[in-house]
Amino acid sequence: MAKRITMAHGDGGEQAHQLIQDLFVEQFAHHKEATLDAAILTLPTEKIAMSTDSFVVNPIFFPGGNIGKLAVAGTVNDIAVSGAKPLYLTCGFILEEGFLISDLEKIVTSMVEEAQKNQVKIVAGDTKVVERGKCDGLYINTTGIGLIEKENELKYDFQVGDCVLVNGNVGDHGIAILTARGELGLMNDVQSDCASLFGFIQTLQEAGITIRIMRDATRGGLATTLVEICEDFSITMELDEEQIPVDDRVHGSCELLGYEPMYLANEGKCIFVVPQEQCEKALEIMKSHPLGQHASKIGEVIHTEQGRLLLKTVFGSSRRLSRLSGMLLPRIC
Amino acid sequence: MAKRITMAHGDGGEQAHQLIQDLFVEQFAHHKEATLDAAILTLPTEKIAMSTDSFVVNPIFFPGGNIGKLAVAGTVNDIAVSGAKPLYLTCGFILEEGFLISDLEKIVTSMVEEAQKNQVKIVAGDTKVVERGKCDGLYINTTGIGLIEKENELKYDFQVGDCVLVNGNVGDHGIAILTARGELGLMNDVQSDCASLFGFIQTLQEAGITIRIMRDATRGGLATTLVEICEDFSITMELDEEQIPVDDRVHGSCELLGYEPMYLANEGKCIFVVPQEQCEKALEIMKSHPLGQHASKIGEVIHTEQGRLLLKTVFGSSRRLSRLSGMLLPRIC
Repeated sequence: MAKRITMAHGDGGEQAHQLIQDLFVEQFAHHKEATLDAAILTLPTEKIAMSTDSFVVNPIFFPGGNIGKLAVAGTVNDIAVSGAKPLYLTCGFILEEGFLISDLEKIVTSMVEEAQKNQVKIVAGDTKVVERGKCDGLYINTTGIGLIEKENELKYDFQVGDCVLVNGNVGDHGIAILTARGELGLMNDVQSDCASLFGFIQTLQEAGITIRIMRDATRGGLATTLVEICEDFSITMELDEEQIPVDDRVHGSCELLGYEPMYLANEGKCIFVVPQEQCEKALEIMKSHPLGQHASKIGEVIHTEQGRLLLKTVFGSSRRLSRLSGMLLPRIC
Repeated sequence: MAKRITMAHGDGGEQAHQLIQDLFVEQFAHHKEATLDAAILTLPTEKIAMSTDSFVVNPIFFPGGNIGKLAVAGTVNDIAVSGAKPLYLTCGFILEEGFLISDLEKIVTSMVEEAQKNQVKIVAGDTKVVERGKCDGLYINTTGIGLIEKENELKYDFQVGDCVLVNGNVGDHGIAILTARGELGLMNDVQSDCASLFGFIQTLQEAGITIRIMRDATRGGLATTLVEICEDFSITMELDEEQIPVDDRVHGSCELLGYEPMYLANEGKCIFVVPQEQCEKALEIMKSHPLGQHASKIGEVIHTEQGRLLLKTVFGSSRRLSRLSGMLLPRIC
């Protein structure tokens, strides 16, 4: 195989064919599907969730993961938080001429590993090559579908007193990426929390926890995701700042930069709203799972109207939170 | 709305929210889906086709279309040639900082128009922004699913004597794009053939034509697509060079550049293999459809083994064709 990506890898001809055969068909085990324009899939039920995400994270390798792991985990998570069981993924690569094929192999290997962890299959792919300087190494789109099983369907039937939980420390991914860029003078060993949450969510569902809503807190962080939930469903939540779990190193970096951890991106953190009476049980289950050791109850639903997110600060005052604005943390995923 | 894309349009915060609300939610009519991480879809049957494609065409506006029309038509075609009825699409945008929002609006409008023509719905989307110089205006991924109806399922049961048909002139898209780039000194008014073929295919299916296989001849052109069919199904076809329809202007440009039209990209051309006894009927139906006026029988299946593509040239000799190689026509789609 060639060492670097050339324009000929993107022309649909012989070299493109070789790359696809040697790398993607082999790794994604597409031997049958590769002969068709589309993957043919049989679904055991009729209601599905479908989600798409493009990944442009910079740098593409970072502490705790790489763009490939992120691309699979990210779409798996979007499907899982919709109450569905992720089943099939497609992936579209946009590659820059000159990109190291050995790096591409590492990325593809991570995608396969992450897909296997979730028992999802990558069933169709596409590869485009653009000239040097028209992309930043590679960008990946993953699109997935999942099955919605009746018992796991989300009802969004919020009640005053519902508890807002998060499965661990917020802001790790954001700080890991900013540190890996080396631009802001940050020095720390924070790892991205990049992880697929499907198994974790399944554990809660199987234990009979009623989930009103769940949403992974990626771009825009915990606060932006919660503002969106409040607005979309016209409910008001109050967060307790003291209860928001933040790693000390992330806290330190944020103090240095003037950032708030609750606006930093996560890639393995999910917000769950559960009935008050199930709060303790849910927390206990979370904490006994590797992805929920630092789980915390961070707030409550205080009205089922108005659509506002309030924060009770460590000083005891209360303020309204809005979406992330003007923080300019691009290419975090 | 802002005039140009800024990095803040990609950070998941307030401005990103505004762009998504004002442009995508509005145009794609996502009012309900926009509140969820994934679109929730109900399928009336269980067997589906799923396909993904990223579009990096340069230039993004070209005679006969733009990247948005192409992105919808391209994925619709991949699903349709699998024997499925396209139903739902997702789209992922990677936007370059500074990209004109008025251009983005034109592109989105084309996507909506093309989706409506095919009665497909764009059900989920994603937007990323990269810094100036890290992308070439915009790249679009579209991923789609379609239903496979039993009566339209492809059987791939080739017979010696089966006819190979194409629905019109080949190479128009390739020449239109190369001309639009203005690099090769080409001067002509060739339009891209960019079109969704689902309706056309449906007309053939409804008339009872048995389609052994169909495949849209995009990157790599007619010849590469046919080589792949021959190899994938171990059949041998012989093409008749004289019967391959080529527009005079495309022919002229190819002579100038030393290209072969059958290796140039198409975006509205499909190869159909049909039983010998249905060949005339199929051709008649094609020719009476706006997308098949120049349809032609271009060859036959001569063995159901070997996996080779042969060309009977205008001089009466015969040669074996291989995949496109070394022609370097990148970013044609």
